[in-house]
Amino acid sequence: MTKVSPEAKRKVHFEPDNVGIVVEQGSNLLEAARDAGVHINASCGGAGVCGTCKVLIRRGEVESTRTDKLSDEEWEQGIRQACQSRIVTDLTVYIPIESRLERAVLSRESKEAPGALATGWRFNPPLSKFFVELPPPTLEDNASDLSRVLRGLNRRYNLSNLTVDFDVLKKLSKILRDSDWKVTVTTLVTAVKPKAADKRRPRVINIESRDTRQKHYSLALDIGTTTVCGQLLDLKRGKALAESIEYNGQISYGQDVISRIAYSQNPGGLKKLQKAVVATINSVIKELVTKSRVNIKHVGHLSVAGNTTMIQILLGLDPKYVRLAPYTPVANFIPPVKARSLGIKVGPHVYLFAFPQVASYIGGDIISGIVGSGVYQRKKLTLYIDIGTNGEVVVGNSDWMVVASCSAGPAFEGGGVRYGMVATTGAIEDFALEPPSLEPVLGTIGGAKPKGICGTGLISIVAGLFGAGILGAKGKFNIDFLTNRLRRGTDGYEYVLAWAPETEIGKDIVITEVDIDNLIRAKAALYAGCQTLVKSVGLSMADIEQVIIAGAFGSHIDIEESITIGLFPDIPRERFVFIGNGSLMGARLASFSTDLMDDARRVARMMTNIELSENADFMHYYVAALFLPHTDASEFPSVTEKLAKLSNSNSKPRIAV
Amino acid sequence: MTKVSPEAKRKVHFEPDNVGIVVEQGSNLLEAARDAGVHINASCGGAGVCGTCKVLIRRGEVESTRTDKLSDEEWEQGIRQACQSRIVTDLTVYIPIESRLERAVLSRESKEAPGALATGWRFNPPLSKFFVELPPPTLEDNASDLSRVLRGLNRRYNLSNLTVDFDVLKKLSKILRDSDWKVTVTTLVTAVKPKAADKRRPRVINIESRDTRQKHYSLALDIGTTTVCGQLLDLKRGKALAESIEYNGQISYGQDVISRIAYSQNPGGLKKLQKAVVATINSVIKELVTKSRVNIKHVGHLSVAGNTTMIQILLGLDPKYVRLAPYTPVANFIPPVKARSLGIKVGPHVYLFAFPQVASYIGGDIISGIVGSGVYQRKKLTLYIDIGTNGEVVVGNSDWMVVASCSAGPAFEGGGVRYGMVATTGAIEDFALEPPSLEPVLGTIGGAKPKGICGTGLISIVAGLFGAGILGAKGKFNIDFLTNRLRRGTDGYEYVLAWAPETEIGKDIVITEVDIDNLIRAKAALYAGCQTLVKSVGLSMADIEQVIIAGAFGSHIDIEESITIGLFPDIPRERFVFIGNGSLMGARLASFSTDLMDDARRVARMMTNIELSENADFMHYYVAALFLPHTDASEFPSVTEKLAKLSNSNSKPRIAV
Repeated sequence: MTKVSPEAKRKVHFEPDNVGIVVEQGSNLLEAARDAGVHINASCGGAGVCGTCKVLIRRGEVESTRTDKLSDEEWEQGIRQACQSRIVTDLTVYIPIESRLERAVLSRESKEAPGALATGWRFNPPLSKFFVELPPPTLEDNASDLSRVLRGLNRRYNLSNLTVDFDVLKKLSKILRDSDWKVTVTTLVTAVKPKAADKRRPRVINIESRDTRQKHYSLALDIGTTTVCGQLLDLKRGKALAESIEYNGQISYGQDVISRIAYSQNPGGLKKLQKAVVATINSVIKELVTKSRVNIKHVGHLSVAGNTTMIQILLGLDPKYVRLAPYTPVANFIPPVKARSLGIKVGPHVYLFAFPQVASYIGGDIISGIVGSGVYQRKKLTLYIDIGTNGEVVVGNSDWMVVASCSAGPAFEGGGVRYGMVATTGAIEDFALEPPSLEPVLGTIGGAKPKGICGTGLISIVAGLFGAGILGAKGKFNIDFLTNRLRRGTDGYEYVLAWAPETEIGKDIVITEVDIDNLIRAKAALYAGCQTLVKSVGLSMADIEQVIIAGAFGSHIDIEESITIGLFPDIPRERFVFIGNGSLMGARLASFSTDLMDDARRVARMMTNIELSENADFMHYYVAALFLPHTDASEFPSVTEKLAKLSNSNSKPRIAV
Repeated sequence: MTKVSPEAKRKVHFEPDNVGIVVEQGSNLLEAARDAGVHINASCGGAGVCGTCKVLIRRGEVESTRTDKLSDEEWEQGIRQACQSRIVTDLTVYIPIESRLERAVLSRESKEAPGALATGWRFNPPLSKFFVELPPPTLEDNASDLSRVLRGLNRRYNLSNLTVDFDVLKKLSKILRDSDWKVTVTTLVTAVKPKAADKRRPRVINIESRDTRQKHYSLALDIGTTTVCGQLLDLKRGKALAESIEYNGQISYGQDVISRIAYSQNPGGLKKLQKAVVATINSVIKELVTKSRVNIKHVGHLSVAGNTTMIQILLGLDPKYVRLAPYTPVANFIPPVKARSLGIKVGPHVYLFAFPQVASYIGGDIISGIVGSGVYQRKKLTLYIDIGTNGEVVVGNSDWMVVASCSAGPAFEGGGVRYGMVATTGAIEDFALEPPSLEPVLGTIGGAKPKGICGTGLISIVAGLFGAGILGAKGKFNIDFLTNRLRRGTDGYEYVLAWAPETEIGKDIVITEVDIDNLIRAKAALYAGCQTLVKSVGLSMADIEQVIIAGAFGSHIDIEESITIGLFPDIPRERFVFIGNGSLMGARLASFSTDLMDDARRVARMMTNIELSENADFMHYYVAALFLPHTDASEFPSVTEKLAKLSNSNSKPRIAV
């Protein structure tokens, strides 16, 4: 081991990015990559336990702690966990494909279902533009410039009771005179109290030369733990002009909210996380204005939905107590804040509206989805499921709503799965066993050579293997099954999905019993969460008249497979609707309608949050759900029937319980 | 003449300050003094026309344009106008006493008259503090931190309908936990609509650990063209703890608002002026907190009154159109603005409330004075006169008010007068002719050797000379009068007030016919302004039931002398009340009472501004007033009577008309 002297500088070169950086000797390699702007996956945020940050040291020396995430073979090859490595000499580091993300695949985002949208709302955006032609001042009428503008607004549009942002005064006199007293005034409704719409006091936030009413835009943003999605909205014409999506730059600091919160507690950690997501937002905005050919100065508002942690970090509010019992957010109703004060590159007059939250794990993204999908408008008993990095479940209708957050674990995002990966190029997302050989047929994202398994693929694989009898109801392989793909591995038995030569990574891609166990825990948590809510109001799953599945992940899921493994309730399939990114949808609709923005506050107030972490019913339901599809066969009548048929139609025993 | 090469650096040393600065060769000497922080009077803002910036070049060479403000003798001595001089070589520059100001004299500020104060108002400061002890969160009650605070305020104080400043969230969680859930919340009423007090939505602007209700302070400030006065107020006990006053740092850039506005139009001029007044404010605040031993962090609000130009410059708003016909301010009702965003050194949560204005030359200082003195509360017909650098006049009562600004010129401040000076040490402020010799007896500020004549002195001198018959009603000397003090000078005849050996400046101090003419114009403008207002509502001067004289200058004025020269109306003397700094008084009272703050808005709306600059009646009255005391003797019955008596009692003809 070379002696580490902290003063010395070392050059690190990253491939295939071809990016270099000079850092102190002894620096952490993962940090160095972040500082160089090179992305390396790090699901656990650098704790060394996830093994997603593997890199190949091509040249030079690191001092690395070895964990059980590295095989002997990998260690010999020079593969190290970046988070466990300190830089000793100048380095050339290669980041293998599975440790990287690809952005291109994000455009797979699905579209919203028109059948599950809020209805009956007025088009009355919180951001408005008014054009006035004012009489120039005379000695007889030399009111102040501001009074003249307000008088003009009152006379022409019957607008009174406006407040004015101080900053508007700074350019007022010049603009009035440069524009020959013809100006466009932008107003914004911010603080809204339910049932007090008549007491709204819109604020004047901007003034522009001449008639700019045709150039009237806003942004809707969904700040997800994994991705940031945005739409640029034309408020004059009431439509979205462009959509853009990028990975949340915070991913480098941990894959889920818990690891982000943990990172935020390091010195400077919160600031780094905030800068990372703001950089992503700025990049999304840049793409949106480029695509839609809109000048950023005509964008006047930001409507933002996200989970509580993402929003607190974006706002620079320490998320520490989100994670610590009893789990309190700083605020559920966020006061208006200037977007630029957060580093977001928009005009200085632009405010950010954050959707109200309900609790630490029930964020504005859920409220936004409920508002956007109109659940709160209908008598119909609805189950709303948002499967993102976390799983949130809402049960209710226009009269009442209960909500819970299920710590499903990261399996749906490919976490805790040996070859798990996020849904990007090369991820196995579809699986079938082709009769009569029962050899697997894989579908991958982008049709590429397989690289790993994403959440959708995992469900498909488990449903397929279970349906074929290769996998038993307890999640153990039926080792009597005649196939060379079943073998004993380090994590119990494993099934080879693709042989090394067929893969992008040059290794056999397998699914292990540990992987399957993680999926069963995840689906059990989500199903038990739904059950807890439904039973808490004295109903059963069969009473549910509509199931709305939100979330990018949700929209690629196969209903039948999901019911087969016991993730979704076994009710008539036509009751299921996929709405894609419900959070973004609600953010867009609230930009179009102040009424819906009001509704968001009302929905947030009407929701009853049920904490599952110490709920006895939930624990009971959870244990009962640790089975494929469920220990209580009556919960899954159609699956039970289908499995019985399959079992009868085969001579071989296919179901090993 | 030495060749000027702009690249070279030159050292300039100022005496008696003993301060040096290195500047580019060719720099303006007045600018160099400003940059070095050395004050030189410059009434006209550097245009070369006032002659108040004379300096003595002791060593080195300047390139100087000679104006008629310098006598041959002065030129020979090496005296130059700093504003007209460019630096050629290294210099030693002496700033004579008459070109400097002294701060000590400012404490002469007079006290308010208790008989002319707003009455019947409730003590309900716009800034409030509330202490709450909150139950810590539990799993059963894990509302957000903000909801918990708002709930506590509602339960204990029945406060609902609050809005919250975003910045409060930043420290909320930490403070709640560090203080064991015992916190003090500061709220502020900002936007107030008349007759809508029930619709007020106070905003939460700060949160502090534990019970800080005993430490509850605010600041009242009067931003005058010449001085900045402040009071530190204890809002818990309802009293002023300290008072402080300083010359407005903008004086270096010009003595009146017009020259300040002119300077603001230079590149960077507005910014320089803003910084200058902010520096003065910070210095006043520093003295206030030191005197009162208050920690600045417990100061929660700023209530500021000033004329329209001073307020616009303080707020960084270009005052260009204040000066250009038709004289429009940017805004009369100033939205709340964070004091720190202007550079004022107070806590980040502190807002600045600026009194509403009526017009370009009717500022918040007048509204503040009217509110503070309660003119708007009484049926009594009142004439309110504020004699500052400008003269503003209000006539009215609780039902109606008319107001006008009189461009009296700078004579009351010592401007346009050969030996004129502001009211500081050595200024002649009192004058009498001692019988039988009729030799003058001078009273100076601080009892020092005379240095010049301040506004009060000028009135006293003219009244005295006129009363004695040495001066005629047209403002010309009676040259038949037997005294060696009367002589012909460069500006017509002049009267020697003090001989060179008796003075501080080593020169004869005289009053010239030009000086007297300037005073007559000033008093004529003010009196004609009052007349125009009074006549505009069909009344006469005799109908006035109360005269309130505001302004630091006003409070040192002698009523009898002022009536003698025709400045004040000739009505019973007991109707006159001096209130000192009415602007500061109102600013203090509005800090104590939200009701009075509301009233300020109401008063601003009820005032009718009469522009005198193109008013035919005013011109008529003005011309008629260019006489001692007035061409219409019936306007000044008691003066006429007194003069007639004097005239009869003397053998010599004393009044030369």
